Amino acid sequence: MRRVTAADNATATPEKTAEHVLDEAHKALAERSYYSRYPESPSPRVYGENAAAEGLSAYESLLGKKFEGLAGAFDGEWVGEEKSPYGPTLDVAYPHLDVKGAMDAAGAAMPSWRNAGPRRRAVVLVEALEQLNKRSFEIANAVQHTSGQPFVMAFQAGGPQAQDRGLEAVAAAYVEQARVPASVTWEKPGRGEPTRMQKDYHVVARGVGLVIGCNTFPTWNAYPGIFASLATGNPVVIKPHPSAVLPLAITVEVLQKVLRDNGFHPELVQLAPEAQGEGLAKVLAERPEVKIIDYTGGPSFGAWLEREGAARGQQVYTEKAGVNTVVVDSTDNVKAMLGNLAFSLSLYTGQMCTTPQNIYLPKAGIDTDEGHLSFEEFGTKLAGAIGGLTGDDAKAVEVLGATVNDDVRARAGSLDKIASDAGGSVVADSREVTHPKYPDAVVRTPGLIGVDVEASDAYTTEQFGPVTFLIGTDGTEQSLATFRDTVRQHGAMTAAVYSTDEGVLDQAREAAMDAGVALSENLLGQVFVNQTAAFSDYHGTGANPAANAAYADSAFVAGRFRVITTRRHV
Amino acid sequence: MRRVTAADNATATPEKTAEHVLDEAHKALAERSYYSRYPESPSPRVYGENAAAEGLSAYESLLGKKFEGLAGAFDGEWVGEEKSPYGPTLDVAYPHLDVKGAMDAAGAAMPSWRNAGPRRRAVVLVEALEQLNKRSFEIANAVQHTSGQPFVMAFQAGGPQAQDRGLEAVAAAYVEQARVPASVTWEKPGRGEPTRMQKDYHVVARGVGLVIGCNTFPTWNAYPGIFASLATGNPVVIKPHPSAVLPLAITVEVLQKVLRDNGFHPELVQLAPEAQGEGLAKVLAERPEVKIIDYTGGPSFGAWLEREGAARGQQVYTEKAGVNTVVVDSTDNVKAMLGNLAFSLSLYTGQMCTTPQNIYLPKAGIDTDEGHLSFEEFGTKLAGAIGGLTGDDAKAVEVLGATVNDDVRARAGSLDKIASDAGGSVVADSREVTHPKYPDAVVRTPGLIGVDVEASDAYTTEQFGPVTFLIGTDGTEQSLATFRDTVRQHGAMTAAVYSTDEGVLDQAREAAMDAGVALSENLLGQVFVNQTAAFSDYHGTGANPAANAAYADSAFVAGRFRVITTRRHV
Repeated sequence: MRRVTAADNATATPEKTAEHVLDEAHKALAERSYYSRYPESPSPRVYGENAAAEGLSAYESLLGKKFEGLAGAFDGEWVGEEKSPYGPTLDVAYPHLDVKGAMDAAGAAMPSWRNAGPRRRAVVLVEALEQLNKRSFEIANAVQHTSGQPFVMAFQAGGPQAQDRGLEAVAAAYVEQARVPASVTWEKPGRGEPTRMQKDYHVVARGVGLVIGCNTFPTWNAYPGIFASLATGNPVVIKPHPSAVLPLAITVEVLQKVLRDNGFHPELVQLAPEAQGEGLAKVLAERPEVKIIDYTGGPSFGAWLEREGAARGQQVYTEKAGVNTVVVDSTDNVKAMLGNLAFSLSLYTGQMCTTPQNIYLPKAGIDTDEGHLSFEEFGTKLAGAIGGLTGDDAKAVEVLGATVNDDVRARAGSLDKIASDAGGSVVADSREVTHPKYPDAVVRTPGLIGVDVEASDAYTTEQFGPVTFLIGTDGTEQSLATFRDTVRQHGAMTAAVYSTDEGVLDQAREAAMDAGVALSENLLGQVFVNQTAAFSDYHGTGANPAANAAYADSAFVAGRFRVITTRRHV
Repeated sequence: MRRVTAADNATATPEKTAEHVLDEAHKALAERSYYSRYPESPSPRVYGENAAAEGLSAYESLLGKKFEGLAGAFDGEWVGEEKSPYGPTLDVAYPHLDVKGAMDAAGAAMPSWRNAGPRRRAVVLVEALEQLNKRSFEIANAVQHTSGQPFVMAFQAGGPQAQDRGLEAVAAAYVEQARVPASVTWEKPGRGEPTRMQKDYHVVARGVGLVIGCNTFPTWNAYPGIFASLATGNPVVIKPHPSAVLPLAITVEVLQKVLRDNGFHPELVQLAPEAQGEGLAKVLAERPEVKIIDYTGGPSFGAWLEREGAARGQQVYTEKAGVNTVVVDSTDNVKAMLGNLAFSLSLYTGQMCTTPQNIYLPKAGIDTDEGHLSFEEFGTKLAGAIGGLTGDDAKAVEVLGATVNDDVRARAGSLDKIASDAGGSVVADSREVTHPKYPDAVVRTPGLIGVDVEASDAYTTEQFGPVTFLIGTDGTEQSLATFRDTVRQHGAMTAAVYSTDEGVLDQAREAAMDAGVALSENLLGQVFVNQTAAFSDYHGTGANPAANAAYADSAFVAGRFRVITTRRHV
């Protein structure tokens, strides 16, 4: 698949480019082949010599002032309490929505957007993604200083990879709508003349889409819902996490400009920032205009949204929490396996919804290319691999980032207690790392706790942050059974298996299908279990309690619009 | 589109025929063009000289005894209290499920059905529909004597039209699953060799599908859910309405035989009959194995299923109740309009979920090809048209059928009270008709009540059965506004408009899109607002409170399965 080159872009209009990108994305999604529109490398060779500096400068110019210029219905208040996990206070104030006015503005913006049709909407949204891509460095700084991600990750996951997920949602939504023909002449044979009717099929939006953002991945977890709802004709209100507003404020600014430039109401996308503890998500969710909710966050509010949303006739897509799992049976490359796992656990201090938490392996140990490893030796070697990756503070922070909140920090500091409560022991404590540039950042390495499979109370709840359990089982059969049962009951976003035995791999696939979770097998190189690729890997499955939706299968888009038929005789 | 002929069938295997039918159905669904696999005419020229007599005889042979031979986990009890709305008691006893055993049997039946894959499942289900079609006359008698439908309607809606809806669901489910490629080699370009991964995409079922049937359309409203869940790999438990078990018992018998003949567990489909008042639907809905629910019935239990089902992670599809609407503005063929409306109101005594209840027209009357008609004259003429259709008892019963339950009978007998409570008047009372063959049948003609638009308390709740409101408005603008608002708030399965003014028709289309209901315009002939055609007309929209689903859009099938990815380096 050929990417549009700079030369193409020089002569293409934004609309022509967007048309082309949409067609590429459409094809990639059908094949689930490799495709990325937005390069993930922050290299100057890709984004230009000055892009990094300009992005940083653009970010810094936003700090310490009001975020002006957004369209929407505001109540005159300004809110904003963002503090970087690296230390500095952002001190940005955002205009607070007048909820009733915002719903009215969204409703007024809807008909022309609906009537524009699926193709036009998709093209406009691709234009917005192209514009967002140009601000990737600015967004990267905003993501870094709200989520605590290390910079390169904030760039990749917060910028191009989020944009690719947005594009995927646009393509998926477009494809699903395009399958509905605009019109048909229906001829029913009869005794004499056939009965002929003209039937027109109108794709209509559901209503206002509410997107509730999270602290750790403010753009990556919000873009699929934002773009899927917009692409299907729904206006969107975005309620960011109060600690991670800025990345979505920039996003709304870009979307509003592109919508306005294309003749649509900018109020199709409105930002709903709130004060800490205000509870605005609940207020918005209870509005009768809201028909779709996309949520990333804690399980108890997520469950409330699912239950009450269904009662209100809302389509609710949630990503909550789970216990991600690795089953280790055997390997022919123990070094690569441990390196891969160490990176998975270390990246962003285990604060990804996809980071493994539970590693099952036989108490009797595993066979490897370096001979048999006991359970204890496996733990020691994994701790060593983590140490190798994170031993140097200056390099470590580029992998670990910073801890996002006090909850994670408290957990990182209490491994002893977690271990003793579970009747286990600390295999590797979570080490305090000093950030060379941000002394106030709380940076921690991943901690490992060894427990027996009986200690299920400990490992069947999500321990968000740098806590991983090494769980000793009676053998791989029990590892797989426990994997299946715990994921069915408690959910998971990811799973992995290491084995040299094709029979075990087959059993692991069966267990993954039963559990309803995607499975990565024998990852040894530069692909990690916590990463999914847009257009090819689904993020989540919707088949276990961790999430009721996946980015982006057809179920993620099919319920966001309805078809209204009008029919008459011809 | 060519139908398979008898000659083709003579040489074709059941599997070849099913493959061919699936491909035809697939194509029709994409185009939404006319397609029907199962002829709706009960004529001997279509179904054979002896088909009617043999079907009646097969039906009669079931009466007064145990319905033996079903597969499933039973608890040793037998239940059954069906009494025909035409009078006779059916006296059929059905084996009562052991719920836990049934869930275990369904679970055990699932893996081989899942592993068979979407195409094989679809082909087997088409074979089952072909076999069901052969029992259409038997099913017609069973539907007639459980629902109270007139015979021809029971044949059409209960037999071939239900089978077509089942086929539509199979095709829609197949298409949606077929869009997921089985496998891809994913190549991500890198500095040196690309990163290559093999990714396999496994379509997996959600769990047990529970289908809760209704009294009035035991097969038509159940087949879409049954076939959609089965086609996506889910075992199904069917809980029929205790007054309408037999049509679904025959259905289960046929499905189990075809599944068994094809090497699958017959327990993929189990019948869950219950005693009146047993509350088995709730017990089944609360089972952890149940992941999908299809429900047709009253709004309060439907709302409970939606809310609690979402909390349990179930996908819930409901059809509840609404206020179907006709807006009359003007016509150039008043005779045909009144004839069409009279038939819509009379058919099955208004006991269709699609029968119009609210007819809005200006208090100042309407313009027609016979001159201006006052509000009162319109009522008199519509009453006359109903009288013309139903004046002769022997002919009337072939349109009206029999009233299905005491609730409908009570309503039919209390038009005066309904009218006076609403400050209106009875325009045409619901007349008692004597059935020439079944003296115990309670047969009623449609009643008309004239009210002012202000009397919204009366007409915004569903008055199931032979009660229609003629609602006087200040003009068509108010008619359309009230139509839009009441449907948004109270739901509707259908809507129609009569106007000679293209501007009014445009406004009606806009109102229908806002209300989220399909619109029939100026129906004057043999197409009626209460009828939808499989493959072309969606039944319901899912966009208003009457139903959260439509037969059969992509949202109806996309949530019934999930995709599990397994990936590894190559």
